[in-house]
Amino acid sequence: MTKPNTMIKAHGTGNDFLIYCDADGSVNPTPREVRELCDRHFGLGADGLIRVTKPQFVDQVSTEVADECGAKGVQWFMDYRNADGSLAEMCGNGTRATALFAQHEGLADADQPFMLGTRAGVKMLSSLGAQPGLGQHVFRVDMGGWSMGELYAYTVSIPGQPGQAPGTFVDMGNPHVVAVIEDAQSTLPVIDDLDLTHAPKVEPQLDHGQNVEFVRIDDMDERADQGEATMRVYERGCGETLSCGTGLCATAITLRARTGINHWRITVAGGILDVAVTDNDVQLTGNAELVATVTLMH
Amino acid sequence: MTKPNTMIKAHGTGNDFLIYCDADGSVNPTPREVRELCDRHFGLGADGLIRVTKPQFVDQVSTEVADECGAKGVQWFMDYRNADGSLAEMCGNGTRATALFAQHEGLADADQPFMLGTRAGVKMLSSLGAQPGLGQHVFRVDMGGWSMGELYAYTVSIPGQPGQAPGTFVDMGNPHVVAVIEDAQSTLPVIDDLDLTHAPKVEPQLDHGQNVEFVRIDDMDERADQGEATMRVYERGCGETLSCGTGLCATAITLRARTGINHWRITVAGGILDVAVTDNDVQLTGNAELVATVTLMH
Repeated sequence: MTKPNTMIKAHGTGNDFLIYCDADGSVNPTPREVRELCDRHFGLGADGLIRVTKPQFVDQVSTEVADECGAKGVQWFMDYRNADGSLAEMCGNGTRATALFAQHEGLADADQPFMLGTRAGVKMLSSLGAQPGLGQHVFRVDMGGWSMGELYAYTVSIPGQPGQAPGTFVDMGNPHVVAVIEDAQSTLPVIDDLDLTHAPKVEPQLDHGQNVEFVRIDDMDERADQGEATMRVYERGCGETLSCGTGLCATAITLRARTGINHWRITVAGGILDVAVTDNDVQLTGNAELVATVTLMH
Repeated sequence: MTKPNTMIKAHGTGNDFLIYCDADGSVNPTPREVRELCDRHFGLGADGLIRVTKPQFVDQVSTEVADECGAKGVQWFMDYRNADGSLAEMCGNGTRATALFAQHEGLADADQPFMLGTRAGVKMLSSLGAQPGLGQHVFRVDMGGWSMGELYAYTVSIPGQPGQAPGTFVDMGNPHVVAVIEDAQSTLPVIDDLDLTHAPKVEPQLDHGQNVEFVRIDDMDERADQGEATMRVYERGCGETLSCGTGLCATAITLRARTGINHWRITVAGGILDVAVTDNDVQLTGNAELVATVTLMH
Protein backbone atom coordinates (compact mmCIF):
# COMPACT_ATOMS: atom_id res chain seq x y z
CA MET A 1 0.00 0.00 0.00
CA THR A 2 1.81 3.09 -1.22
CA LYS A 3 -1.21 5.12 -2.26
CA PRO A 4 -1.16 8.67 -0.94
CA ASN A 5 -3.83 9.16 1.72
CA THR A 6 -4.58 12.80 0.93
CA MET A 7 -4.28 14.58 -2.42
CA ILE A 8 -5.39 17.79 -4.08
CA LYS A 9 -7.54 17.69 -7.21
CA ALA A 10 -6.34 20.43 -9.54
CA HIS A 11 -6.45 21.38 -13.19
CA GLY A 12 -4.61 23.42 -15.80
CA THR A 13 -7.12 24.62 -18.41
CA GLY A 14 -9.21 21.48 -17.93
CA ASN A 15 -6.33 18.98 -17.91
CA ASP A 16 -6.91 17.54 -14.43
CA PHE A 17 -4.59 15.97 -11.87
CA LEU A 18 -4.33 14.45 -8.44
CA ILE A 19 -1.29 16.04 -6.77
CA TYR A 20 0.48 15.26 -3.50
CA CYS A 21 3.80 15.95 -1.85
CA ASP A 22 6.04 13.02 -0.99
CA ALA A 23 8.94 14.80 0.73
CA ASP A 24 10.72 11.67 1.97
CA GLY A 25 10.18 9.44 -1.08
CA SER A 26 8.05 6.92 0.82
CA VAL A 27 4.73 7.22 -1.07
CA ASN A 28 5.37 5.82 -4.54
CA PRO A 29 2.28 4.13 -6.00
CA THR A 30 2.44 1.16 -8.35
CA PRO A 31 1.01 1.48 -11.88
CA ARG A 32 -2.05 -0.45 -10.72
CA GLU A 33 -2.58 1.95 -7.79
CA VAL A 34 -2.25 4.91 -10.16
CA ARG A 35 -4.90 3.40 -12.44
CA GLU A 36 -7.22 2.87 -9.46
CA LEU A 37 -6.82 6.46 -8.24
CA CYS A 38 -7.25 7.98 -11.71
CA ASP A 39 -10.26 5.83 -12.67
CA ARG A 40 -13.11 8.30 -13.01
CA HIS A 41 -15.87 5.90 -11.97
CA PHE A 42 -14.30 3.52 -9.45
CA GLY A 43 -11.66 5.90 -8.09
CA LEU A 44 -11.23 9.67 -7.84
CA GLY A 45 -10.60 10.40 -11.49
CA ALA A 46 -7.92 12.45 -13.23
CA ASP A 47 -5.89 12.65 -16.43
CA GLY A 48 -2.80 11.98 -14.36
CA LEU A 49 -1.24 11.65 -10.90
CA ILE A 50 1.53 14.07 -9.92
CA ARG A 51 3.93 13.05 -7.15
CA VAL A 52 5.91 16.11 -6.04
CA THR A 53 9.09 14.78 -4.51
CA LYS A 54 12.86 15.29 -4.28
CA PRO A 55 14.81 14.54 -7.49
CA GLN A 56 16.68 11.62 -5.90
CA PHE A 57 13.45 9.72 -5.21
CA VAL A 58 12.25 9.60 -8.84
CA ASP A 59 12.54 6.52 -11.08
CA GLN A 60 13.67 6.57 -14.69
CA VAL A 61 15.42 9.93 -14.73
CA SER A 62 18.26 10.22 -17.25
CA THR A 63 21.78 11.02 -16.05
CA GLU A 64 21.64 14.32 -17.92
CA VAL A 65 18.47 15.40 -16.14
CA ALA A 66 19.77 14.22 -12.75
CA ASP A 67 22.95 16.23 -13.36
CA GLU A 68 20.93 19.29 -14.44
CA CYS A 69 18.81 19.05 -11.27
CA GLY A 70 22.00 18.86 -9.20
CA ALA A 71 23.74 21.73 -10.99
CA LYS A 72 20.69 24.02 -10.65
CA GLY A 73 19.93 23.05 -7.07
CA VAL A 74 16.42 21.83 -7.97
CA GLN A 75 14.46 20.98 -4.84
CA TRP A 76 11.22 19.60 -6.28
CA PHE A 77 10.52 17.18 -9.10
CA MET A 78 7.24 16.46 -10.94
CA ASP A 79 7.02 12.66 -11.07
CA TYR A 80 4.13 12.46 -13.55
CA ARG A 81 2.09 9.30 -14.09
CA ASN A 82 -0.50 8.96 -16.81
CA ALA A 83 -3.96 7.68 -15.86
CA ASP A 84 -3.01 4.31 -17.36
CA GLY A 85 -0.16 3.97 -14.83
CA SER A 86 2.68 4.67 -17.26
CA LEU A 87 5.36 7.30 -16.61
CA ALA A 88 5.30 10.56 -18.55
CA GLU A 89 8.27 12.74 -19.33
CA MET A 90 6.46 16.04 -19.17
CA CYS A 91 3.06 17.73 -19.08
CA GLY A 92 2.85 21.46 -19.72
CA ASN A 93 -0.53 21.92 -18.04
CA GLY A 94 0.69 19.74 -15.17
CA THR A 95 3.67 22.00 -14.46
CA ARG A 96 1.36 24.97 -13.84
CA ALA A 97 -0.91 22.97 -11.55
CA THR A 98 2.18 21.72 -9.72
CA ALA A 99 3.52 25.26 -9.31
CA LEU A 100 0.21 26.43 -7.80
CA PHE A 101 0.15 23.37 -5.53
CA ALA A 102 3.72 24.13 -4.44
CA GLN A 103 2.73 27.69 -3.52
CA HIS A 104 -0.26 26.40 -1.57
CA GLU A 105 1.88 23.90 0.33
CA GLY A 106 4.63 26.42 1.02
CA LEU A 107 7.15 24.63 -1.22
CA ALA A 108 7.50 27.59 -3.59
CA ASP A 109 7.49 31.35 -3.26
CA ALA A 110 5.14 33.25 -5.60
CA ASP A 111 7.70 36.06 -5.94
CA GLN A 112 10.47 33.78 -7.22
CA PRO A 113 10.81 31.69 -10.37
CA PHE A 114 10.04 28.07 -9.50
CA MET A 115 12.48 25.47 -10.84
CA LEU A 116 10.69 22.17 -11.32
CA GLY A 117 12.45 18.98 -12.30
CA THR A 118 10.75 16.81 -14.96
CA ARG A 119 12.00 13.79 -16.89
CA ALA A 120 12.30 16.16 -19.88
CA GLY A 121 14.63 18.47 -17.93
CA VAL A 122 14.30 21.36 -15.48
CA LYS A 123 11.42 23.73 -16.27
CA MET A 124 11.33 27.31 -15.04
CA LEU A 125 7.89 28.63 -14.04
CA SER A 126 6.97 32.26 -13.41
CA SER A 127 3.92 33.11 -11.33
CA LEU A 128 1.98 35.94 -13.04
CA GLY A 129 -1.07 36.00 -10.72
CA ALA A 130 -4.37 37.10 -12.27
CA GLN A 131 -4.17 37.93 -15.98
CA PRO A 132 -7.05 39.38 -18.06
CA GLY A 133 -8.58 36.71 -20.29
CA LEU A 134 -6.40 33.91 -18.91
CA GLY A 135 -7.48 33.40 -15.27
CA GLN A 136 -6.70 34.00 -11.60
CA HIS A 137 -3.59 31.82 -11.17
CA VAL A 138 -1.54 32.24 -14.31
CA PHE A 139 1.91 30.75 -14.82
CA ARG A 140 4.36 30.95 -17.69
CA VAL A 141 6.51 27.91 -18.37
CA ASP A 142 9.43 27.58 -20.74
CA MET A 143 8.62 24.43 -22.70
CA GLY A 144 12.13 24.23 -24.20
CA GLY A 145 13.33 23.43 -27.72
CA TRP A 146 11.39 22.19 -30.72
CA SER A 147 11.82 21.10 -34.32
CA MET A 148 9.45 21.24 -37.26
CA GLY A 149 9.18 19.26 -40.49
CA GLU A 150 8.37 20.71 -43.91
CA LEU A 151 5.14 22.77 -43.99
CA TYR A 152 2.14 20.78 -45.30
CA ALA A 153 4.09 17.52 -45.88
CA TYR A 154 1.23 15.41 -44.51
CA THR A 155 -2.43 14.94 -45.32
CA VAL A 156 -4.95 14.77 -42.48
CA SER A 157 -8.42 13.26 -42.82
CA ILE A 158 -11.12 12.03 -40.41
CA PRO A 159 -12.80 8.62 -40.83
CA GLY A 160 -16.48 9.06 -41.70
CA GLN A 161 -16.16 12.76 -42.52
CA PRO A 162 -15.58 14.40 -45.90
CA GLY A 163 -12.50 16.33 -46.95
CA GLN A 164 -8.85 16.62 -45.96
CA ALA A 165 -6.31 19.24 -44.95
CA PRO A 166 -2.52 19.59 -45.21
CA GLY A 167 -0.64 18.78 -42.00
CA THR A 168 2.71 19.91 -40.60
CA PHE A 169 4.91 17.77 -38.35
CA VAL A 170 6.26 19.28 -35.12
CA ASP A 171 8.45 17.48 -32.58
CA MET A 172 7.95 18.75 -29.01
CA GLY A 173 9.54 15.69 -27.45
CA ASN A 174 6.29 14.01 -28.52
CA PRO A 175 5.06 14.00 -32.15
CA HIS A 176 2.37 16.35 -33.47
CA VAL A 177 0.75 16.96 -36.83
CA VAL A 178 -0.97 20.35 -37.09
CA ALA A 179 -3.74 20.85 -39.66
CA VAL A 180 -4.84 24.43 -40.34
CA ILE A 181 -8.49 24.33 -41.43
CA GLU A 182 -11.16 26.77 -42.61
CA ASP A 183 -8.79 28.10 -45.27
CA ALA A 184 -8.37 27.61 -49.04
CA GLN A 185 -6.27 24.44 -48.67
CA SER A 186 -8.66 22.56 -46.33
CA THR A 187 -11.81 20.76 -47.42
CA LEU A 188 -12.53 19.46 -43.89
CA PRO A 189 -15.69 20.65 -42.07
CA VAL A 190 -15.46 23.82 -39.94
CA ILE A 191 -13.86 23.33 -36.51
CA ASP A 192 -17.13 23.14 -34.54
CA ASP A 193 -18.44 20.39 -36.84
CA LEU A 194 -15.43 18.04 -36.66
CA ASP A 195 -16.33 14.65 -35.18
CA LEU A 196 -13.24 13.59 -33.20
CA THR A 197 -14.74 10.48 -31.58
CA HIS A 198 -12.34 8.40 -33.67
CA ALA A 199 -8.66 8.95 -34.44
CA PRO A 200 -7.84 11.20 -37.41
CA LYS A 201 -5.80 9.64 -40.21
CA VAL A 202 -2.37 11.05 -41.16
CA GLU A 203 -0.61 10.17 -44.43
CA PRO A 204 2.14 9.21 -44.86
CA GLN A 205 1.86 7.30 -41.59
CA LEU A 206 4.21 8.08 -38.68
CA ASP A 207 5.85 5.08 -37.01
CA HIS A 208 4.76 5.88 -33.46
CA GLY A 209 1.50 7.69 -34.20
CA GLN A 210 0.96 11.34 -33.33
CA ASN A 211 -1.25 13.90 -31.67
CA VAL A 212 -3.30 15.85 -34.22
CA GLU A 213 -4.25 19.51 -33.85
CA PHE A 214 -7.00 21.16 -35.91
CA VAL A 215 -6.55 24.92 -35.96
CA ARG A 216 -8.50 27.88 -37.25
CA ILE A 217 -6.80 31.30 -37.48
CA ASP A 218 -9.20 33.88 -36.02
CA ASP A 219 -7.20 37.09 -36.18
CA MET A 220 -3.73 38.40 -37.07
CA ASP A 221 -2.07 41.71 -36.24
CA GLU A 222 1.36 41.72 -37.90
CA ARG A 223 2.43 45.08 -36.47
CA ALA A 224 1.69 43.90 -32.92
CA ASP A 225 3.23 40.50 -33.77
CA GLN A 226 0.12 38.90 -32.26
CA GLY A 227 -2.39 36.36 -33.61
CA GLU A 228 -5.48 34.55 -32.35
CA ALA A 229 -6.51 31.01 -33.14
CA THR A 230 -8.87 28.25 -32.04
CA MET A 231 -7.65 24.68 -31.65
CA ARG A 232 -9.06 21.19 -31.06
CA VAL A 233 -6.74 18.31 -30.27
CA TYR A 234 -6.88 14.54 -30.59
CA GLU A 235 -4.24 13.03 -28.28
CA ARG A 236 -2.56 9.78 -29.23
CA GLY A 237 -3.99 6.95 -27.12
CA CYS A 238 -6.41 9.32 -25.36
CA GLY A 239 -8.92 10.79 -27.77
CA GLU A 240 -10.04 14.39 -27.86
CA THR A 241 -8.93 16.38 -24.81
CA LEU A 242 -9.75 19.82 -23.45
CA SER A 243 -6.18 21.07 -23.65
CA CYS A 244 -2.72 19.80 -24.56
CA GLY A 245 0.32 21.90 -23.65
CA THR A 246 2.68 20.50 -26.27
CA GLY A 247 -0.16 20.61 -28.84
CA LEU A 248 -0.61 24.33 -28.17
CA CYS A 249 3.13 24.82 -28.70
CA ALA A 250 3.10 22.77 -31.92
CA THR A 251 0.19 24.86 -33.17
CA ALA A 252 1.92 28.18 -32.47
CA ILE A 253 5.12 26.90 -34.13
CA THR A 254 3.21 25.94 -37.28
CA LEU A 255 1.28 29.24 -37.37
CA ARG A 256 4.57 31.15 -36.95
CA ALA A 257 6.14 29.30 -39.89
CA ARG A 258 3.09 30.13 -41.97
CA THR A 259 2.60 33.78 -40.97
CA GLY A 260 5.78 35.07 -39.33
CA ILE A 261 3.80 36.02 -36.19
CA ASN A 262 5.51 34.93 -32.96
CA HIS A 263 2.78 35.41 -30.32
CA TRP A 264 -0.49 33.48 -30.36
CA ARG A 265 -3.51 33.54 -28.06
CA ILE A 266 -5.16 30.15 -28.56
CA THR A 267 -8.64 29.11 -27.46
CA VAL A 268 -9.12 25.42 -26.62
CA ALA A 269 -12.11 23.64 -25.06
CA GLY A 270 -10.46 24.02 -21.63
CA GLY A 271 -9.73 27.72 -21.80
CA ILE A 272 -7.44 30.32 -23.35
CA LEU A 273 -3.63 30.26 -23.32
CA ASP A 274 -0.80 32.35 -24.76
CA VAL A 275 2.12 30.84 -26.65
CA ALA A 276 5.29 32.72 -27.58
CA VAL A 277 7.75 31.12 -30.03
CA THR A 278 11.39 31.92 -30.72
CA ASP A 279 13.85 29.96 -32.83
CA ASN A 280 15.11 28.19 -29.72
CA ASP A 281 12.16 27.74 -27.42
CA VAL A 282 8.44 28.05 -26.71
CA GLN A 283 6.80 29.67 -23.72
CA LEU A 284 3.31 28.59 -22.68
CA THR A 285 1.22 30.85 -20.40
CA GLY A 286 -2.03 29.67 -18.83
CA ASN A 287 -4.13 29.25 -15.73
CA ALA A 288 -4.24 26.59 -12.99
CA GLU A 289 -6.79 25.94 -10.24
CA LEU A 290 -6.87 23.87 -7.06
CA VAL A 291 -10.34 22.33 -6.76
CA ALA A 292 -10.55 20.18 -3.63
CA THR A 293 -8.72 18.22 -0.96
CA VAL A 294 -9.38 14.50 -1.29
CA THR A 295 -8.86 11.90 1.43
CA LEU A 296 -9.22 8.19 0.69
CA MET A 297 -11.64 6.25 2.91
CA HIS A 298 -9.80 2.92 2.83
CA MET B 1 -23.36 29.81 -2.65
CA THR B 2 -25.23 26.64 -1.77
CA LYS B 3 -22.58 24.13 -2.79
CA PRO B 4 -21.87 21.54 -0.12
CA ASN B 5 -18.42 22.05 1.37
CA THR B 6 -17.68 18.38 2.03
CA MET B 7 -18.96 15.34 0.13
CA ILE B 8 -18.23 11.66 -0.22
CA LYS B 9 -17.30 10.21 -3.63
CA ALA B 10 -19.01 6.82 -3.94
CA HIS B 11 -20.08 4.39 -6.62
CA GLY B 12 -22.53 1.56 -7.27
CA THR B 13 -20.99 -0.85 -9.79
CA GLY B 14 -19.14 2.00 -11.46
CA ASN B 15 -22.03 4.48 -11.54
CA ASP B 16 -20.41 7.25 -9.48
CA PHE B 17 -21.81 9.94 -7.23
CA LEU B 18 -21.01 12.84 -4.95
CA ILE B 19 -23.15 12.41 -1.81
CA TYR B 20 -23.73 14.66 1.16
CA CYS B 21 -26.21 15.04 3.97
CA ASP B 22 -28.27 18.21 4.19
CA ALA B 23 -30.25 17.60 7.38
CA ASP B 24 -31.75 21.08 7.67
CA GLY B 25 -32.47 21.72 3.98
CA SER B 26 -30.03 24.62 3.74
CA VAL B 27 -27.56 23.26 1.16
CA ASN B 28 -29.46 23.06 -2.11
CA PRO B 29 -27.21 23.69 -5.13
CA THR B 30 -28.40 25.33 -8.31
CA PRO B 31 -28.26 23.39 -11.62
CA ARG B 32 -25.14 25.37 -12.53
CA GLU B 33 -23.45 24.45 -9.24
CA VAL B 34 -24.33 20.79 -9.81
CA ARG B 35 -22.76 20.94 -13.28
CA GLU B 36 -19.61 22.53 -11.82
CA LEU B 37 -19.26 19.87 -9.11
CA CYS B 38 -19.92 16.96 -11.49
CA ASP B 39 -17.61 18.24 -14.24
CA ARG B 40 -14.86 15.63 -14.42
CA HIS B 41 -12.12 18.03 -15.54
CA PHE B 42 -12.91 21.40 -13.93
CA GLY B 43 -14.73 20.04 -10.87
CA LEU B 44 -14.73 16.81 -8.89
CA GLY B 45 -16.51 14.61 -11.39
CA ALA B 46 -19.46 12.24 -11.03
CA ASP B 47 -22.44 10.84 -12.91
CA GLY B 48 -24.68 12.58 -10.41
CA LEU B 49 -24.97 14.53 -7.16
CA ILE B 50 -27.03 13.01 -4.32
CA ARG B 51 -28.40 15.32 -1.65
CA VAL B 52 -29.62 13.23 1.29
CA THR B 53 -32.18 15.34 3.08
CA LYS B 54 -35.58 15.29 4.79
CA PRO B 55 -38.57 14.71 2.45
CA GLN B 56 -40.02 18.16 3.15
CA PHE B 57 -36.91 19.91 1.79
CA VAL B 58 -37.07 18.35 -1.69
CA ASP B 59 -38.37 20.14 -4.79
CA GLN B 60 -40.66 18.59 -7.40
CA VAL B 61 -42.03 15.72 -5.36
CA SER B 62 -45.53 14.59 -6.36
CA THR B 63 -48.34 14.69 -3.81
CA GLU B 64 -48.58 10.88 -3.95
CA VAL B 65 -44.90 10.46 -3.10
CA ALA B 66 -45.05 13.10 -0.36
CA ASP B 67 -48.07 11.30 1.11
CA GLU B 68 -46.30 7.92 0.86
CA CYS B 69 -43.25 9.34 2.67
CA GLY B 70 -45.52 10.69 5.40
CA ALA B 71 -47.51 7.47 5.76
CA LYS B 72 -44.38 5.33 6.00
CA GLY B 73 -42.51 7.71 8.28
CA VAL B 74 -39.65 8.10 5.80
CA GLN B 75 -36.80 10.08 7.36
CA TRP B 76 -34.37 10.43 4.44
CA PHE B 77 -34.89 11.30 0.80
CA MET B 78 -32.53 10.87 -2.16
CA ASP B 79 -32.67 14.21 -4.01
CA TYR B 80 -30.84 13.05 -7.14
CA ARG B 81 -29.38 15.49 -9.67
CA ASN B 82 -27.92 14.40 -12.97
CA ALA B 83 -24.47 15.68 -13.94
CA ASP B 84 -26.16 18.14 -16.33
CA GLY B 85 -27.97 19.77 -13.39
CA SER B 86 -31.41 18.32 -14.14
CA LEU B 87 -33.49 16.45 -11.54
CA ALA B 88 -33.84 12.66 -11.74
CA GLU B 89 -36.71 10.61 -10.42
CA MET B 90 -34.69 7.58 -9.47
CA CYS B 91 -31.31 5.85 -9.83
CA GLY B 92 -31.04 2.20 -8.77
CA ASN B 93 -27.25 2.26 -8.37
CA GLY B 94 -27.57 5.55 -6.51
CA THR B 95 -29.94 4.08 -3.90
CA ARG B 96 -27.31 1.50 -2.88
CA ALA B 97 -24.55 4.12 -2.64
CA THR B 98 -26.93 6.29 -0.59
CA ALA B 99 -27.74 3.41 1.76
CA LEU B 100 -24.02 2.76 2.37
CA PHE B 101 -23.44 6.49 2.90
CA ALA B 102 -26.35 6.56 5.37
CA GLN B 103 -24.81 3.69 7.36
CA HIS B 104 -21.43 5.47 7.37
CA GLU B 105 -22.99 8.71 8.61
CA GLY B 106 -25.12 6.98 11.22
CA LEU B 107 -28.40 7.82 9.46
CA ALA B 108 -29.29 4.15 8.90
CA ASP B 109 -28.84 0.92 10.81
CA ALA B 110 -27.29 -2.00 8.87
CA ASP B 111 -29.59 -4.45 10.70
CA GLN B 112 -32.80 -2.75 9.61
CA PRO B 113 -34.38 -2.23 6.19
CA PHE B 114 -33.67 1.33 5.06
CA MET B 115 -36.62 3.26 3.65
CA LEU B 116 -35.40 5.87 1.19
CA GLY B 117 -37.66 8.44 -0.40
CA THR B 118 -37.17 9.08 -4.14
CA ARG B 119 -39.24 11.04 -6.63
CA ALA B 120 -40.37 7.64 -7.99
CA GLY B 121 -41.68 6.60 -4.55
CA VAL B 122 -40.29 5.06 -1.37
CA LYS B 123 -37.65 2.37 -1.98
CA MET B 124 -36.84 -0.31 0.58
CA LEU B 125 -33.17 -1.33 0.81
CA SER B 126 -31.78 -4.38 2.60
CA SER B 127 -28.13 -4.48 3.63
CA LEU B 128 -26.67 -7.90 2.78
CA GLY B 129 -23.01 -7.19 3.68
CA ALA B 130 -20.39 -9.13 1.72
CA GLN B 131 -21.79 -11.47 -0.94
CA PRO B 132 -19.69 -13.89 -3.03
CA GLY B 133 -19.28 -12.61 -6.58
CA LEU B 134 -21.06 -9.33 -5.88
CA GLY B 135 -18.85 -7.39 -3.46
CA GLN B 136 -18.23 -6.24 0.12
CA HIS B 137 -21.18 -3.86 0.59
CA VAL B 138 -24.15 -5.45 -1.12
CA PHE B 139 -27.67 -4.05 -0.98
CA ARG B 140 -30.95 -5.29 -2.42
CA VAL B 141 -33.45 -2.70 -3.57
CA ASP B 142 -37.03 -3.20 -4.63
CA MET B 143 -37.23 -1.32 -7.93
CA GLY B 144 -41.04 -1.53 -8.02
CA GLY B 145 -43.47 -2.26 -10.85
CA TRP B 146 -42.81 -2.61 -14.55
CA SER B 147 -44.57 -3.19 -17.86
CA MET B 148 -43.39 -4.82 -21.06
CA GLY B 149 -44.44 -4.50 -24.70
CA GLU B 150 -44.75 -7.36 -27.18
CA LEU B 151 -41.57 -9.47 -27.48
CA TYR B 152 -39.40 -8.52 -30.50
CA ALA B 153 -41.74 -5.72 -31.69
CA TYR B 154 -38.78 -3.45 -32.50
CA THR B 155 -35.69 -3.67 -34.67
CA VAL B 156 -32.35 -2.47 -33.28
CA SER B 157 -29.36 -1.56 -35.43
CA ILE B 158 -26.12 0.39 -34.94
CA PRO B 159 -25.01 3.11 -37.37
CA GLY B 160 -21.84 2.04 -39.17
CA GLN B 161 -22.09 -1.62 -38.12
CA PRO B 162 -23.67 -4.51 -40.02
CA GLY B 163 -26.74 -6.46 -38.94
CA GLN B 164 -29.77 -5.98 -36.71
CA ALA B 165 -31.56 -7.67 -33.84
CA PRO B 166 -35.14 -7.79 -32.57
CA GLY B 167 -35.84 -5.49 -29.61
CA THR B 168 -38.38 -5.62 -26.77
CA PHE B 169 -39.82 -2.54 -25.08
CA VAL B 170 -39.82 -2.37 -21.26
CA ASP B 171 -41.14 0.54 -19.18
CA MET B 172 -39.31 0.92 -15.85
CA GLY B 173 -40.51 4.50 -15.34
CA ASN B 174 -38.01 5.25 -18.10
CA PRO B 175 -38.13 3.58 -21.56
CA HIS B 176 -35.88 0.68 -22.55
CA VAL B 177 -35.48 -1.47 -25.64
CA VAL B 178 -33.68 -4.76 -24.97
CA ALA B 179 -31.94 -6.58 -27.84
CA VAL B 180 -30.84 -10.16 -27.23
CA ILE B 181 -27.83 -10.86 -29.46
CA GLU B 182 -25.54 -13.77 -30.31
CA ASP B 183 -28.57 -15.95 -31.10
CA ALA B 184 -30.33 -17.11 -34.27
CA GLN B 185 -32.43 -13.96 -34.60
CA SER B 186 -29.57 -11.45 -34.34
CA THR B 187 -27.17 -10.57 -37.14
CA LEU B 188 -25.37 -7.91 -35.07
CA PRO B 189 -21.68 -8.43 -34.13
CA VAL B 190 -20.86 -10.28 -30.90
CA ILE B 191 -21.19 -8.21 -27.72
CA ASP B 192 -17.46 -7.44 -27.33
CA ASP B 193 -17.31 -6.10 -30.89
CA LEU B 194 -20.25 -3.68 -30.71
CA ASP B 195 -19.19 -0.07 -31.28
CA LEU B 196 -21.47 1.99 -29.01
CA THR B 197 -19.76 5.36 -29.54
CA HIS B 198 -22.92 6.50 -31.34
CA ALA B 199 -26.58 5.96 -30.46
CA PRO B 200 -28.19 2.70 -31.65
CA LYS B 201 -31.21 3.03 -33.94
CA VAL B 202 -34.61 1.64 -32.90
CA GLU B 203 -37.47 1.13 -35.37
CA PRO B 204 -40.30 2.03 -35.16
CA GLN B 205 -39.07 5.15 -33.40
CA LEU B 206 -40.15 5.91 -29.84
CA ASP B 207 -41.36 9.45 -29.17
CA HIS B 208 -39.03 10.21 -26.27
CA GLY B 209 -36.08 8.02 -27.24
CA GLN B 210 -34.95 5.10 -25.12
CA ASN B 211 -32.07 3.35 -23.40
CA VAL B 212 -30.89 0.33 -25.39
CA GLU B 213 -29.55 -2.86 -23.80
CA PHE B 214 -27.54 -5.46 -25.75
CA VAL B 215 -27.67 -8.80 -23.99
CA ARG B 216 -26.02 -12.18 -24.45
CA ILE B 217 -27.40 -15.20 -22.55
CA ASP B 218 -24.41 -17.05 -21.06
CA ASP B 219 -26.05 -19.85 -19.07
CA MET B 220 -29.48 -21.14 -18.04
CA ASP B 221 -30.46 -23.59 -15.31
CA GLU B 222 -34.23 -24.03 -15.48
CA ARG B 223 -34.43 -26.33 -12.46
CA ALA B 224 -32.61 -23.79 -10.29
CA ASP B 225 -34.65 -20.99 -11.94
CA GLN B 226 -31.35 -19.15 -12.48
CA GLY B 227 -29.70 -17.68 -15.57
CA GLU B 228 -26.55 -15.74 -16.40
CA ALA B 229 -26.17 -13.01 -18.98
CA THR B 230 -23.82 -10.24 -20.11
CA MET B 231 -25.14 -6.77 -20.92
CA ARG B 232 -23.93 -3.52 -22.46
CA VAL B 233 -26.08 -0.41 -22.25
CA TYR B 234 -26.40 2.81 -24.21
CA GLU B 235 -28.17 5.38 -22.03
CA ARG B 236 -30.36 8.01 -23.65
CA GLY B 237 -28.54 11.36 -23.64
CA CYS B 238 -25.47 9.82 -22.00
CA GLY B 239 -23.84 7.24 -24.24
CA GLU B 240 -22.50 3.89 -23.13
CA THR B 241 -22.27 3.56 -19.34
CA LEU B 242 -20.74 1.01 -16.98
CA SER B 243 -24.02 0.08 -15.35
CA CYS B 244 -27.69 1.10 -15.45
CA GLY B 245 -30.03 -0.15 -12.72
CA THR B 246 -33.27 0.15 -14.67
CA GLY B 247 -31.51 -1.31 -17.74
CA LEU B 248 -30.52 -4.39 -15.72
CA CYS B 249 -34.14 -4.76 -14.62
CA ALA B 250 -35.45 -4.34 -18.19
CA THR B 251 -32.99 -7.00 -19.33
CA ALA B 252 -34.07 -9.53 -16.70
CA ILE B 253 -37.74 -8.85 -17.49
CA THR B 254 -37.13 -9.52 -21.20
CA LEU B 255 -35.10 -12.66 -20.51
CA ARG B 256 -37.82 -13.93 -18.16
CA ALA B 257 -40.49 -13.45 -20.86
CA ARG B 258 -38.31 -15.34 -23.29
CA THR B 259 -37.17 -18.21 -21.05
CA GLY B 260 -39.46 -18.39 -18.00
CA ILE B 261 -36.42 -18.00 -15.69
CA ASN B 262 -36.97 -15.47 -12.89
CA HIS B 263 -33.46 -14.96 -11.46
CA TRP B 264 -30.60 -13.50 -13.48
CA ARG B 265 -26.98 -12.80 -12.62
CA ILE B 266 -25.90 -10.12 -15.09
CA THR B 267 -22.36 -8.97 -15.85
CA VAL B 268 -21.93 -5.35 -16.93
CA ALA B 269 -18.76 -3.31 -17.48
CA GLY B 270 -19.03 -2.01 -13.90
CA GLY B 271 -19.47 -5.35 -12.15
CA ILE B 272 -21.95 -8.15 -11.50
CA LEU B 273 -25.49 -7.79 -10.19
CA ASP B 274 -28.45 -10.07 -9.45
CA VAL B 275 -31.96 -9.32 -10.66
CA ALA B 276 -35.09 -11.16 -9.49
CA VAL B 277 -38.38 -10.61 -11.35
CA THR B 278 -41.96 -11.34 -10.30
CA ASP B 279 -45.18 -10.32 -12.04
CA ASN B 280 -45.42 -7.27 -9.79
CA ASP B 281 -41.90 -6.10 -9.12
CA VAL B 282 -38.15 -6.35 -9.71
CA GLN B 283 -35.42 -6.60 -7.11
CA LEU B 284 -31.90 -5.45 -7.94
CA THR B 285 -28.96 -6.64 -5.81
CA GLY B 286 -25.49 -5.17 -6.14
CA ASN B 287 -22.48 -3.59 -4.49
CA ALA B 288 -21.65 -0.03 -3.41
CA GLU B 289 -18.37 1.55 -2.28
CA LEU B 290 -17.37 4.79 -0.57
CA VAL B 291 -14.15 6.03 -2.18
CA ALA B 292 -13.06 9.29 -0.58
CA THR B 293 -14.01 12.35 1.40
CA VAL B 294 -13.80 15.50 -0.70
CA THR B 295 -13.57 19.06 0.61
CA LEU B 296 -13.80 22.03 -1.74
CA MET B 297 -10.94 24.54 -1.56
CA HIS B 298 -12.96 27.65 -2.45
